[in-house]
Amino acid sequence: MNGAESLVRTLVAGGVDVCFTNPGTSEMHFVAALDRVEGMRCVLGLFEGVVTGAADGYYRMKGTPASTLLHLGPGLANGLANLHNAKKANSGIVNIVGQHATYHIAYNAPLTSDIEGLARPMSAWVRTSPDAKSVAADGAAAIAAAKGAQIATLILPADTAWNEADGIAQVPDENQRASYSAKAVDQAAKLLRNGGASTLLLMTGGALTEHGLDLAGRIAGKTGCKVMTPTSNPRVARGRGRFSIDRIPYVIEQAMPILREFKNIVLVEAGEPVAFFAYPNKPSLLKPQGCEVHRMTSGAENSVAALEALAGALQAQPSDRQPQKLVELVKPTGALTHASIAQAIAMAIPENAIVVDESITTGRGFFPPTAAANPHDWLQNMGGSIGFSTPVATGAAVACPDRKVICMVGDGSAMYTLQSLWTQAREGLNVVTIVFANKIYQILRGEFDGVGAGEPGQRALDMLKLDRPDLDFVALAKGMGVPARAVANVDDFVKALAEAVAEPGPRLIEVQM
Amino acid sequence: MNGAESLVRTLVAGGVDVCFTNPGTSEMHFVAALDRVEGMRCVLGLFEGVVTGAADGYYRMKGTPASTLLHLGPGLANGLANLHNAKKANSGIVNIVGQHATYHIAYNAPLTSDIEGLARPMSAWVRTSPDAKSVAADGAAAIAAAKGAQIATLILPADTAWNEADGIAQVPDENQRASYSAKAVDQAAKLLRNGGASTLLLMTGGALTEHGLDLAGRIAGKTGCKVMTPTSNPRVARGRGRFSIDRIPYVIEQAMPILREFKNIVLVEAGEPVAFFAYPNKPSLLKPQGCEVHRMTSGAENSVAALEALAGALQAQPSDRQPQKLVELVKPTGALTHASIAQAIAMAIPENAIVVDESITTGRGFFPPTAAANPHDWLQNMGGSIGFSTPVATGAAVACPDRKVICMVGDGSAMYTLQSLWTQAREGLNVVTIVFANKIYQILRGEFDGVGAGEPGQRALDMLKLDRPDLDFVALAKGMGVPARAVANVDDFVKALAEAVAEPGPRLIEVQM
Repeated sequence: MNGAESLVRTLVAGGVDVCFTNPGTSEMHFVAALDRVEGMRCVLGLFEGVVTGAADGYYRMKGTPASTLLHLGPGLANGLANLHNAKKANSGIVNIVGQHATYHIAYNAPLTSDIEGLARPMSAWVRTSPDAKSVAADGAAAIAAAKGAQIATLILPADTAWNEADGIAQVPDENQRASYSAKAVDQAAKLLRNGGASTLLLMTGGALTEHGLDLAGRIAGKTGCKVMTPTSNPRVARGRGRFSIDRIPYVIEQAMPILREFKNIVLVEAGEPVAFFAYPNKPSLLKPQGCEVHRMTSGAENSVAALEALAGALQAQPSDRQPQKLVELVKPTGALTHASIAQAIAMAIPENAIVVDESITTGRGFFPPTAAANPHDWLQNMGGSIGFSTPVATGAAVACPDRKVICMVGDGSAMYTLQSLWTQAREGLNVVTIVFANKIYQILRGEFDGVGAGEPGQRALDMLKLDRPDLDFVALAKGMGVPARAVANVDDFVKALAEAVAEPGPRLIEVQM
Repeated sequence: MNGAESLVRTLVAGGVDVCFTNPGTSEMHFVAALDRVEGMRCVLGLFEGVVTGAADGYYRMKGTPASTLLHLGPGLANGLANLHNAKKANSGIVNIVGQHATYHIAYNAPLTSDIEGLARPMSAWVRTSPDAKSVAADGAAAIAAAKGAQIATLILPADTAWNEADGIAQVPDENQRASYSAKAVDQAAKLLRNGGASTLLLMTGGALTEHGLDLAGRIAGKTGCKVMTPTSNPRVARGRGRFSIDRIPYVIEQAMPILREFKNIVLVEAGEPVAFFAYPNKPSLLKPQGCEVHRMTSGAENSVAALEALAGALQAQPSDRQPQKLVELVKPTGALTHASIAQAIAMAIPENAIVVDESITTGRGFFPPTAAANPHDWLQNMGGSIGFSTPVATGAAVACPDRKVICMVGDGSAMYTLQSLWTQAREGLNVVTIVFANKIYQILRGEFDGVGAGEPGQRALDMLKLDRPDLDFVALAKGMGVPARAVANVDDFVKALAEAVAEPGPRLIEVQM
């Protein structure tokens, strides 16, 4: 077998059996190997940002890495923004990137570029295979790195793909998620015992499973501490019956009063609360003066086990958890407002759905009402680079074919990686995309105020507004084979949602704000 | 004035008065400054690849750089593929990239990344402004670098934009295109005198103006040498009355027999002929054994002046140039074939049009018949990263509002940066986009054979084909406000072209192959 086949076989044997691809010439031997190797599902994207974002969504739902197949430096470059988001979400991905044959690189052909240089800013692990016999072992090392929740980028010169290899390689012992520090748990227990009401348990990552949240609920009930998450999280178990916790608000002026009451913050995988952006005369650090920050677990540790131990140390029982206040969801009617939209979506979320949220401005109001929705997983953008949600929804749907995916996105964000719709149509993925068409980068209109730039004039507004011409998402979806409709009032929105959720395959709803 | 305003004023004073933008929060002070500074035209793109590609097209037609405005690391990353293409075309661009405020970078907020690391592979000049008072001078240095036909990337931490600056800065003495080496011209003259028929004059870049080509035509007539261009060129003056020269074919098996007859190759800005990709058991270098390569000018020199000197040394007169064979363009009819499509386009090109060519597979046949078309400029992809043409056409149309732009692109390539259409509609740009919808990455189907990967099976074919579902480019164009129609025979194509060329503003034609 050649190097390409040794890699595909190593990937499949190592449990990496989905490949999101946008290949080029230097990857043709990898593509050819797909015909000879059983067990690799390949999913084509029409743009590399779709491919890398899909791998992020796949990892978040599956917990094991997918691979990508990307064409040389510029192909990788097109995928970097969503690799950035994936990196910040601690998602594991194996990127396979083509390269010219080793001896051809020196000739500076048109597609020659510094591929390792491009890969490094968004990858924890980067390697260029030197020859065909190394490819399988390099692939196995990449899988191991990706299983450790890292972005691994393996660069494959074309001759290492077509020359003869020795066979497949075993993936080294899995990078097991470490346990936790008993000392850190003891310290947290002491803090919570002595001053529960003035302590914030700030949780993210692996802690935000249904069970992790339940443990936090018991601890809160027992000690009076507050439990929150950062503004954005890779995945949160939410909905009816689950312990519902608030996020630290994005807006500094809203976050600081909430944090002011705490003397101690215990971090469960989370980072210290910092502002998303800096603004003139506003702080970067959000905690109050004198507040102490203690780390209980990092992203590499087992936070649920640590929470178990913490609950045990505090003798926090299931009965300590305060029952969730039952919010009744009422069918909204009339005009499309942020509140009525949120209510409509909360009612429409089906049991065990996956909600991918990139509705940046509109979306801030969704979190409270959806706490009472059917149980679901909520996925957010961790890196702040827009064009995140439609690819991540695509990958999540590949990972979980039996679950419905709801993708909420603003019109501005949707236009970065809209090619995802074609992949959804091709693969028959169960994704309902809701585009909030407010015809402006509304987040930027807010940030314009936030940075103290004054009132925007016409020339500045032209750089923020998406009118002239209006985007027609129904036509755009149709162009990529996805049935779509536009709604302009909440009754139609409720109907469109019910219809879209009931039907298999992708659907798009344009919400005309 | 603040740092942002000092930069905008420096750009305008330095002759950089067009900015292709896709801004974010860290660039809001730059956007705000636009309201206070006259003379900067800002053009919004919905994706950064549109923005950087447009700057490439602008430079190629205008000869002076535009600027871009990009959001932090991931925003820059989205623009890198077309910066790669621009770099390989020796296009000058001033990239303005936002960054967190200097003091905020340490907090590793979600959008924090290694921006300089991302910029370096595609930029000749990279600098991060340390404070507001440095911004104007750094901007002036970036302009000087870009005027020297380089990609210059200036990274602007938010506090350097909002803090008080000292005023504008002068752009240092323009990086003048150097003259040429008289010795290299003498050597070329000697070669041509002693063995014109066995010498190839291989020209690209600044040599391919109408006048440069005319000089080459005289030299060829006088000495019997052959004049060719590489497979791709940033810009070639073509059409009726101009000296028409062939390109070295892309396919190795076609290129080598043509080059076999030469004992000497004289390079006028061009590189030594190399294969675009490496293939098993095929060479990377295309020249025959024993053929000597001599450089007459590099891209930094004045090739037209060198050609003048060479013609002078050889006493080559206008009368030495062989008159161009008059090819009569005949209106094609019947089925859509590569030949009839090429003929239809050759007939439709209006006087002084700009033709942007990314019709990779289909396009190989266009070059010969369009030699007899109305005089026009022909722009090609120099870096090989697809998604090039629709942005470059956009920027060329901004640079030359009085000229019609014809953009020829395959369906696969079009889907990378289709957002260009919205910018064309917003700005009312005179671009006719022709999408060749053959429903496959046809170039890859050819390359699959080229790399000796055998006959593709179903799984490999699925990674090359763009059917299931078919893309509907008429709907996609409508979704972005561009009138469009699809044609399935050559008579309708001829009609659609005539209509599209006659109307102002953007149009799209989907050619269903």
